[in-house]
Amino acid sequence: MSDYVSMWKDLGMDLENHDLLCQVLPTAVGDVFLSQENRPKAMDFWDLVISEVHGIRPAELIKEQEKGRKVFGTFCVYVPDEVVIAANGIVTGLCGGSQFWVPDGEKVLPKSTCPLVKASVGARLGRTCPFFRIADMYVGETTCDAKKKAYEILGEDVPMHIMDVPQMKRTKDIVKWKEEIADFAKVVEEFTGNAITPEKLSEAIHIVNEKRKAMQRVYDCRKSECLPISGRDVLLMTQISFFDDPVRCAEMCNRLADELEQRIKDGVSVVKEGTKRILVTGTPMAVPNWKLHNIIETSGGAVVCEEMCTGTRYFENFVDESKTTLDEQFMALSERYMKTNCACFTPNTGRIDDLLRMVKEYKIDGVIDCSLKFCCLYDTEKYSVSRALKEAGIPVLSLETDYADTDAEQLRTRIGAFIEMLND
Amino acid sequence: MSDYVSMWKDLGMDLENHDLLCQVLPTAVGDVFLSQENRPKAMDFWDLVISEVHGIRPAELIKEQEKGRKVFGTFCVYVPDEVVIAANGIVTGLCGGSQFWVPDGEKVLPKSTCPLVKASVGARLGRTCPFFRIADMYVGETTCDAKKKAYEILGEDVPMHIMDVPQMKRTKDIVKWKEEIADFAKVVEEFTGNAITPEKLSEAIHIVNEKRKAMQRVYDCRKSECLPISGRDVLLMTQISFFDDPVRCAEMCNRLADELEQRIKDGVSVVKEGTKRILVTGTPMAVPNWKLHNIIETSGGAVVCEEMCTGTRYFENFVDESKTTLDEQFMALSERYMKTNCACFTPNTGRIDDLLRMVKEYKIDGVIDCSLKFCCLYDTEKYSVSRALKEAGIPVLSLETDYADTDAEQLRTRIGAFIEMLND
Repeated sequence: MSDYVSMWKDLGMDLENHDLLCQVLPTAVGDVFLSQENRPKAMDFWDLVISEVHGIRPAELIKEQEKGRKVFGTFCVYVPDEVVIAANGIVTGLCGGSQFWVPDGEKVLPKSTCPLVKASVGARLGRTCPFFRIADMYVGETTCDAKKKAYEILGEDVPMHIMDVPQMKRTKDIVKWKEEIADFAKVVEEFTGNAITPEKLSEAIHIVNEKRKAMQRVYDCRKSECLPISGRDVLLMTQISFFDDPVRCAEMCNRLADELEQRIKDGVSVVKEGTKRILVTGTPMAVPNWKLHNIIETSGGAVVCEEMCTGTRYFENFVDESKTTLDEQFMALSERYMKTNCACFTPNTGRIDDLLRMVKEYKIDGVIDCSLKFCCLYDTEKYSVSRALKEAGIPVLSLETDYADTDAEQLRTRIGAFIEMLND
Repeated sequence: MSDYVSMWKDLGMDLENHDLLCQVLPTAVGDVFLSQENRPKAMDFWDLVISEVHGIRPAELIKEQEKGRKVFGTFCVYVPDEVVIAANGIVTGLCGGSQFWVPDGEKVLPKSTCPLVKASVGARLGRTCPFFRIADMYVGETTCDAKKKAYEILGEDVPMHIMDVPQMKRTKDIVKWKEEIADFAKVVEEFTGNAITPEKLSEAIHIVNEKRKAMQRVYDCRKSECLPISGRDVLLMTQISFFDDPVRCAEMCNRLADELEQRIKDGVSVVKEGTKRILVTGTPMAVPNWKLHNIIETSGGAVVCEEMCTGTRYFENFVDESKTTLDEQFMALSERYMKTNCACFTPNTGRIDDLLRMVKEYKIDGVIDCSLKFCCLYDTEKYSVSRALKEAGIPVLSLETDYADTDAEQLRTRIGAFIEMLND
């Protein structure tokens, strides 16, 4: 990635420290992805992107900024990309998935904060992530205690807009979220200098729906008994989709889905027949957090679905494209987003409904419910998730982990035993 | 407390386990309170109440229930008592402040949940607290991740109403909270069978304001250089105020304030001249959590103010009594409650303003910012609290603790060193 050094320098990054990250990433990519056999050819796109993850896309974003476009950094699947796109803005994900960033986060946050939040804050404050340097505006939301309070600290360093996510899902809460979206639209209009018209918003809604449909197509292929792609590869695709241009993302996902559908017709599977099919649920896995998938898939299991923000919660449910006024469109957006079943809501029984449905759709043999340490929300929901799955006769393994490697062997032992139990 | 055994039996309590709690409490009360010299005589009321804390008030509540009145159990200073009182209902606090209840809470909640929430859930599920048996309805709120999710589990066992607290404090959020209060009023009317009229609500607002004024009077006495009461004694008064009848509470607080005002005139202090004056801020201290106050006041300091829910956040700010329609009254309630500066809001700069004001009002020498373990909200705010106090030249000690005694010596060392530093 050395071609990008001057760009990183211009971004005010800590080059010396960033070099350390650049040194370890290729090994991780090689170990987790390139070592796999019989991968879909269409993964070449994501292999390229991840090999220069701090170069290719950042360079594109800077080029667009030079044309006057604004980049909005987001941390949550609840922030509606459509609004930004309608104002000719660009959205990029900002979540941090590496232990590398955690120590810098711990300089300002309590150690007992989830690693995702610590890494995100650390990536900004340590100046070791170009996306965190490039974003013109950060968009936060009140989804969990840790993010909500961390944004106050981040907000001292960058322009920050906070959206207040209702904590329940009654009719009035959906209206409330619509109003937050309308307020956000005003902020985006002012910040970009571009008006959001019903036509522009309609176009943006269509773009993001097409991206969702393309991702759903890839996921649909995983429902086949003949499994044409590994969980690791789909996870990488999903993770990168938060950073990519949405039109290209849809194009690449559709290209991959074409190949996967052909593979299914041809009976090409990436795993041996009878490999146990695992659904992973819980907290998001930000780039480059591939730990759990890698352990599962090198312990005799195959991950065929992720009920998580870096998974089905990101692309399931479409926005109604039939609305023609901004007011109706904002409501359509609210209705779609409020269908996402995050543990920040109370109650969140919809997540259990989703899980039971997905267990059938994806022909799941066992569920691994894994949360990042100190994620109170998903950690507490393990109680009801595990009970509901057991009542439905689905084996479930509840785990917690962080970004450090120290628990890898312990996880491998527990996951190995779980898959062995499924094989019995 | 053996006179109450048949009552506890009727409440379906686990008598054997509860006995263990009854055995240790008198020693704790003796050590922390009765060992103090020169206490105000008016503390006799709270000494009596705490000596039979699971007897006297529970018996009263049951008597009122027999007359047809309903008891509402609450966990947060954001739930407006006025609405319940207007419908002839009774409010009782439900928070648990003892390690005794934690293991029962950990049966259903993650270990990395704050002890207050684990103890509250454990007190209910372990059937070892009469208040948790007596309450006809529980009122929860979406203030923190841990409580929000714990209520889902509690709600399987008891009738539960959740109020959605906005996470910000913009004008529209105050309107939103007003609407939550109005909805809550409907629930209370239905549950009690009593209509809430403007007259009834006006009376209830007055009752609770009078209670607040009486508590404020006691706190005002602590502003005197001649300190007429210990922090432990005021903490006990405040803790019990969550459980007591509000009219009697006001009467007893006023009786105490009369005595304290006289003491100030007479120059009667409970501490030696020059004793360092400590403000304690952070997470609430539920009965019987007296750990921190006890350590501070047996290490040469005097606690003269608590900027916490079991402190100033409970009684500061009055509800406007001039409103005559329910709609206006609900708005007046919302405006008053939204002045309370809880760390669940973002931003929460009002808390820092409060702290800087109180440091002056109470003539503070040093601030101890102490949160319960795994309270992400207050833990994260330590960063900005500590910075603001240091900028203002106020020494601050940041701590975290839980209900176990294992860290008592370590806390004593750190607090002792802090007070010694103040004395230098």
